[in-house]
Amino acid sequence: MSFKKNENNPKKKVALIGCGLIGQSWAISFLSAGFDVSLFDPVEGVTEKAKEKIKTKLSDLQKYGLLKNKNISDLLDKVHLAQDLSQAVEGSFYVQESGPEDLDIKKELTKKIDAVAAENIPIASSTSGIPASLYASDVKGKYRCLVAHPINPPHLIPAVEIVPAPFTREAITQAVKKIITSIGKEPLKLEKEIPGFVVNRLQGALLCEAFNLVKEGIASAEDIDKAISEGLGLRWSFMGPFQTIHLNAPEGIAGYVKRYEKMYKEMFNKPNIEWASVLELGLEKELLNLYKLHESEKHARERDIRLTELILHKIKT
Amino acid sequence: MSFKKNENNPKKKVALIGCGLIGQSWAISFLSAGFDVSLFDPVEGVTEKAKEKIKTKLSDLQKYGLLKNKNISDLLDKVHLAQDLSQAVEGSFYVQESGPEDLDIKKELTKKIDAVAAENIPIASSTSGIPASLYASDVKGKYRCLVAHPINPPHLIPAVEIVPAPFTREAITQAVKKIITSIGKEPLKLEKEIPGFVVNRLQGALLCEAFNLVKEGIASAEDIDKAISEGLGLRWSFMGPFQTIHLNAPEGIAGYVKRYEKMYKEMFNKPNIEWASVLELGLEKELLNLYKLHESEKHARERDIRLTELILHKIKT
Repeated sequence: MSFKKNENNPKKKVALIGCGLIGQSWAISFLSAGFDVSLFDPVEGVTEKAKEKIKTKLSDLQKYGLLKNKNISDLLDKVHLAQDLSQAVEGSFYVQESGPEDLDIKKELTKKIDAVAAENIPIASSTSGIPASLYASDVKGKYRCLVAHPINPPHLIPAVEIVPAPFTREAITQAVKKIITSIGKEPLKLEKEIPGFVVNRLQGALLCEAFNLVKEGIASAEDIDKAISEGLGLRWSFMGPFQTIHLNAPEGIAGYVKRYEKMYKEMFNKPNIEWASVLELGLEKELLNLYKLHESEKHARERDIRLTELILHKIKT
Repeated sequence: MSFKKNENNPKKKVALIGCGLIGQSWAISFLSAGFDVSLFDPVEGVTEKAKEKIKTKLSDLQKYGLLKNKNISDLLDKVHLAQDLSQAVEGSFYVQESGPEDLDIKKELTKKIDAVAAENIPIASSTSGIPASLYASDVKGKYRCLVAHPINPPHLIPAVEIVPAPFTREAITQAVKKIITSIGKEPLKLEKEIPGFVVNRLQGALLCEAFNLVKEGIASAEDIDKAISEGLGLRWSFMGPFQTIHLNAPEGIAGYVKRYEKMYKEMFNKPNIEWASVLELGLEKELLNLYKLHESEKHARERDIRLTELILHKIKT
């Protein structure tokens, strides 16, 4: 979870290339963890505007006590507006690029960053779906290129997908994981590249089904939204889908699959996976290791307490 | 949201048939809204055990202040253990059946309830996926049969799916919606029956994709869970998927679809819906009506404030 740790970083600077909403959010995350940030955007005037927006959002966070005792003008002193790429990356130990979602622009921009950044400094992209294999394969220093994809709004959502290409050096991936952790975020590492990564594939699958339900005239968009915001989403704000179903049957995920396989089969005419095959994936072993069956009563109780506290929180806000 | 309203219901009794976890949760919801409940379970000794469990869960809720000034022993006085179905439904204005997820059992049980319940009293089933058309078509009083599906754990999650069959009378459906609202829950009404209803279809679509990601070796179950619990699930705990994407592009859902259609197409080899067709569904009109574009900055700010408060809440708990 953000805003919790890493108060005492030594003075270090990161380069943030592209200063739209995503770049601004990265700036806030790095600043509140004690880092300096160099902002650069190829469009004139954008970095100045970004600094203003960063100030506003920092004030919002301060109002809620999320900046602890930090002084906003002290933090803004750590924002450096660079005139060009070279100036931005100079002295930086990490580069986060948040340019447009366009393959050709990303290819070009990554090459330019690689040409000026010191050796072995990671160059991460905020892209929400373009794998590094596609945009960085022609880059000379491709070994240090990878994706670090945050979720909107990135200064508030902890998860960041770390997606190395096959050519990314393991040491670079590990370094980026550490950097992301050091700003209080939750890195989740993909073992292989896949279009849309994990986050947008999960969101996409849910959206496709939601669109189908509208198309079939099953329910209004408002009621479908409620199925999440007053239903499934409450659990999902603190436990993932696997943990959820593992806890929903006394025998854990194996019991859940056995119990509901038929229902899910009938539900989707052409399910894209055989539910019965799921238990051969090593998934059960991982889940039983994470959440032991003999503790399931304890886990259910913890879930209920968290839900109760979430409900109290929702009533208050 | 539960636990908020309806403190002053006149003394009224509901019959709860089947007293496992789901039946117990219904009891808690009705009791805390001021109703009497009659419990019946065909297995001997189950209602007594259920009453004990209800007591424990009521104590938990009281500890968190969710029962206001109510006295637990007063509430438990309103729990009546019935010896048979007739006794359970006698004097009840609503029947909620929470029997096993088995078509034949549900057919039989519904017939039996129908035979003893007074005319025009709704008979709702907690089934998570069997439409009333399947289990109630041979029931004499099928006009008053429908599904009212809660989400586990039902005494804490507000959403309840209301799924009438084509033979269910509209007046019955409306009455059930009112009853569900009167216990502080959020009814979401399906216009048509569909296997798995809305909640389990959305959950199933997400799970299928999550299983595929494990199968393809993309990430661990733990990291996939994090994509939700530290990522998408934070927004989803207070806004549904449509509202989320509507807010993620300056032009609303139309802009989102235009911007990401290609990404989602490449993501799923055989997407089960054409994204471009989505805007012909009347969905955009509904969303623009619910969330106006010229207020999108305000909505984004509200989202960020709710997220900030949720993060503070998550840090504390």
